[in-house]
Amino acid sequence: MDIKDNMSVLELVEQMGKSGVLGAGRMYRATKLLADVIQDEDTAVFLSIAGPLVPGGLRKIVRDMINDGLVDVMFTSGANLTHDLLMAFGGDHYRGIHDNDEKLCEQGMGRIADLYTKSEDFEVFEKEITEILSKISQKEKNLTIREFITALGNSVDDESSILYTAAKKGVPIYAPGMIDSMLGLQLFMFTQDHEFCLDASGDMHELSDKVFESKKVATVILGGGLPKHYALASNLLKGGVDAAIQVTMDRGETGSLSGAPLEEAKSWAKAKAGSKLVTVVGDATIIFPIMVAGAREMISKSD
Amino acid sequence: MDIKDNMSVLELVEQMGKSGVLGAGRMYRATKLLADVIQDEDTAVFLSIAGPLVPGGLRKIVRDMINDGLVDVMFTSGANLTHDLLMAFGGDHYRGIHDNDEKLCEQGMGRIADLYTKSEDFEVFEKEITEILSKISQKEKNLTIREFITALGNSVDDESSILYTAAKKGVPIYAPGMIDSMLGLQLFMFTQDHEFCLDASGDMHELSDKVFESKKVATVILGGGLPKHYALASNLLKGGVDAAIQVTMDRGETGSLSGAPLEEAKSWAKAKAGSKLVTVVGDATIIFPIMVAGAREMISKSD
Amino acid sequence: MDIKDNMSVLELVEQMGKSGVLGAGRMYRATKLLADVIQDEDTAVFLSIAGPLVPGGLRKIVRDMINDGLVDVMFTSGANLTHDLLMAFGGDHYRGIHDNDEKLCEQGMGRIADLYTKSEDFEVFEKEITEILSKISQKEKNLTIREFITALGNSVDDESSILYTAAKKGVPIYAPGMIDSMLGLQLFMFTQDHEFCLDASGDMHELSDKVFESKKVATVILGGGLPKHYALASNLLKGGVDAAIQVTMDRGETGSLSGAPLEEAKSWAKAKAGSKLVTVVGDATIIFPIMVAGAREMISKSD
Amino acid sequence: MDIKDNMSVLELVEQMGKSGVLGAGRMYRATKLLADVIQDEDTAVFLSIAGPLVPGGLRKIVRDMINDGLVDVMFTSGANLTHDLLMAFGGDHYRGIHDNDEKLCEQGMGRIADLYTKSEDFEVFEKEITEILSKISQKEKNLTIREFITALGNSVDDESSILYTAAKKGVPIYAPGMIDSMLGLQLFMFTQDHEFCLDASGDMHELSDKVFESKKVATVILGGGLPKHYALASNLLKGGVDAAIQVTMDRGETGSLSGAPLEEAKSWAKAKAGSKLVTVVGDATIIFPIMVAGAREMISKSD
Repeated sequence: MDIKDNMSVLELVEQMGKSGVLGAGRMYRATKLLADVIQDEDTAVFLSIAGPLVPGGLRKIVRDMINDGLVDVMFTSGANLTHDLLMAFGGDHYRGIHDNDEKLCEQGMGRIADLYTKSEDFEVFEKEITEILSKISQKEKNLTIREFITALGNSVDDESSILYTAAKKGVPIYAPGMIDSMLGLQLFMFTQDHEFCLDASGDMHELSDKVFESKKVATVILGGGLPKHYALASNLLKGGVDAAIQVTMDRGETGSLSGAPLEEAKSWAKAKAGSKLVTVVGDATIIFPIMVAGAREMISKSD
Repeated sequence: MDIKDNMSVLELVEQMGKSGVLGAGRMYRATKLLADVIQDEDTAVFLSIAGPLVPGGLRKIVRDMINDGLVDVMFTSGANLTHDLLMAFGGDHYRGIHDNDEKLCEQGMGRIADLYTKSEDFEVFEKEITEILSKISQKEKNLTIREFITALGNSVDDESSILYTAAKKGVPIYAPGMIDSMLGLQLFMFTQDHEFCLDASGDMHELSDKVFESKKVATVILGGGLPKHYALASNLLKGGVDAAIQVTMDRGETGSLSGAPLEEAKSWAKAKAGSKLVTVVGDATIIFPIMVAGAREMISKSD
Repeated sequence: MDIKDNMSVLELVEQMGKSGVLGAGRMYRATKLLADVIQDEDTAVFLSIAGPLVPGGLRKIVRDMINDGLVDVMFTSGANLTHDLLMAFGGDHYRGIHDNDEKLCEQGMGRIADLYTKSEDFEVFEKEITEILSKISQKEKNLTIREFITALGNSVDDESSILYTAAKKGVPIYAPGMIDSMLGLQLFMFTQDHEFCLDASGDMHELSDKVFESKKVATVILGGGLPKHYALASNLLKGGVDAAIQVTMDRGETGSLSGAPLEEAKSWAKAKAGSKLVTVVGDATIIFPIMVAGAREMISKSD
Repeated sequence: MDIKDNMSVLELVEQMGKSGVLGAGRMYRATKLLADVIQDEDTAVFLSIAGPLVPGGLRKIVRDMINDGLVDVMFTSGANLTHDLLMAFGGDHYRGIHDNDEKLCEQGMGRIADLYTKSEDFEVFEKEITEILSKISQKEKNLTIREFITALGNSVDDESSILYTAAKKGVPIYAPGMIDSMLGLQLFMFTQDHEFCLDASGDMHELSDKVFESKKVATVILGGGLPKHYALASNLLKGGVDAAIQVTMDRGETGSLSGAPLEEAKSWAKAKAGSKLVTVVGDATIIFPIMVAGAREMISKSD
């Protein structure tokens, strides 16, 4: 690899491609594959996000990808939806705090590795989301989780929001484990004295249609968990995805899906025989920005 | 550490305690804490299981813990429920197969690291579960996920089954992400032409009651994911758990909950200030059998 | 896996073997292979130890294996030799200290994860080792590293010492990176005003003879580093080892030798085609005591 | 983080700095610290390289840093020296080979993760290095390892070579474990019938002088092993380094130095109280090129 002054991200990633081995080789191949699947009009891009990637700095990158039409379907956790809404309501994430966890609790700070949340932001979240739930439930008593997330997106007024942008652009967001989050908790408390029901399996039909109406599907998987499984398994009935990229720090030996090599998905018909699969082992808050910057530059140069 | 001939597991774990540092120290402290919370009549034990631990050999250990009254509440994934049922229907898990993933797919073998499933077992699973769903839905049109799991347990006839045993012993099993599994897929297909609805947030009330009626709660967490989050977060409103053990191979730096140190839970009031917390970094299929064998021996000796 | 009351370690490991998959399967296969290579009179057992395993509690296990004739050749780091000597001189390792690293430094405590050393023990070490170096250098001015380690073993009077026991039993200890340790530092300072020279490459001839006079070689590798490389590479000229076990927490993707799968060694002729290779991913302070206890019990039962 | 079209690497790294948390925050802080220590005339930069980073694509980056005066002292393994020489003699590293390890061995290919070496390149290496050893040993019978490495650098004629460039620029390379490598093996075989002796502890005096003549020292540590230990420990007598950056995939729980947090070094006086320490968890073949490209751009902009 050759480092020159004032290199663009793509120039650096192409140097990694020239080396072609170890992490650098994976980094290049993932970037190239991302550019390819975005540019291929026949391929729908399914983006799966687990782990604290919205508070971890990827909110705008994901929002911009949706806004620019680079993502067709998104999968995520209730926690990322919660953090997107919390920011839409004026809350934020904090850093540089060094008390121990017991003191943080007294101060109303929740810790995720080296990032922090404030309980006062969650109080605003609680107030705002309850109002939104009231309005949504006045119109509809029965929604699938995806419909509910779209309704949330339509209820917030923040162009930086992933939910807002996805709702505007018609990009569906699926969050099968949504209930297990602060958003889910508020929803549960709301339903204690309001008539409102989320249909847990209701999204499968719609998602299945999305898969079948796409000529090809590529999944881009950050972290593991339910979003990863759902993004892959939804392609099962059609014989699997045509391409997949995953960024993970988990290891494969324990058999957990989060650390599983993408190749395993071929045995389950979640990835097609011959599908292109690239795993980058690393922290998504480093790897994904490089991959997106590199892929965007590739695309802009190929236009 | 001193190795003697024909040591019992507890004797070995106690040697690890004498060393007291690194993994060995953690192994001892986790075993001791498990014995303590099981023996303490005021402490409810919440067991959370993520990753392929039922196909990975822990089915009987978990079933026996439930049968012997050592576990009060269980949390798991749809996949572990699926594998427990698949075995109850006569299916199994296989090993020693060395084809590549594309060939495995042709042969109808699904791979999880070095363990394998057969599609013919899943066909039996499909047939059997559809019959059970018919019977359940004839009685009830509306169930929470926990109620549905209990109904499943009451519908199988296999003393080795976790679901069967939990139903018999009245141990509730919560699986907030159940829908995202083969079991969930069958349920979805069934509901396409049958009236039957699972309530996604319906379990929260019951689980919350379980938490409040327990003087103290200890969570034992194998793997991460939704089960880990749910097991901890359900204690939020009561100020957090009193003790927690976790076994994981994931790392904490990325901020994902699966690899998060238990101490973080204190900042969120998911673990109480002063609660006892032990993490063992390792493969649960090795660590948990040792921990259970050691704790059971401790308990039998203290009687 | 089936947990019964008061199981022996071997009974538990055999349960892991019945499951046969994931970590549990590896744990059983490693234990069985260890018992097999120890019992096979034609196989020389090469034990490689990297990482703080002497302060981490494995000192007596290793010393006993050497004393009982289960190990034929040992490889380790200068740090493990230093810690063995420090204990032979009356020093110890400490735990349960919770100051931050800057305060620890002021108090003269060196930290290795959650274990601690005291500078006063190192002062005793310095005094004692200088005396020993004086005596050794009065007899010999030129030693290979292995000869020097044997001379150290003959100079201490502690039956618990690995160096003492290895010297008594004629088990050679190779430590190619010995100079990079507290022991190495003392040696360097001694040679500033004394005539004494260690031959860096002098051990290769002797070690090569050891390899060629063994019908078969099995390496048991705890941790990675120089000891792992030396233990394997010394078998290169004879076409590689016949069997190998490794316990490691490092991962393979970065290409570092410490995390490399044993299979790679076959491509380099450091392991023979058809050699038996088992890796257990885990903490050696947990995994190795189980493996040794299980293997010893297997052997005692097969007698 | 905000991704714009055609971003420079520094612009991207600055976006990571704005986020400031998780891996992205570490990536920025490491890059900034690297730029700072390079620019500070009072700080000597000690670069430590373990793992297959020369065959893994970092050869030119390291060579250029030395050539441009950004590195003052280097530490590495015998393997990286071997690979640098192998390339200087016309050899290379290969990729895209997919045979199993037993077949690779038959074909004379050595595997390191997904990169490959050819035995015919090693045959050229053997021939060339033997000639060089003859010439060196005709002049000198006694060299320290560092002097020997400089002599090697002066014997090759390849401007792309790290050894050549370091020799030209007067940058010392220390490799305390050099003997444990293909280069070490050739040296050993040469000394079987030639009079030539490497002094294992001879470098300590010179290195110690380097440390004491530097007002401040910053270590940049890629991977762990002996090079990491030596780079830090050589600063012990002066109270420790003033700054350190490390890039590693190893974890800290096992206590191995390779995965140890840099903070531990403070307790041992290998890092000063108040020293700036940044760890990035990741693959050095991805992380280091970004860090160097970003730091070089920072420096060129601040000029």
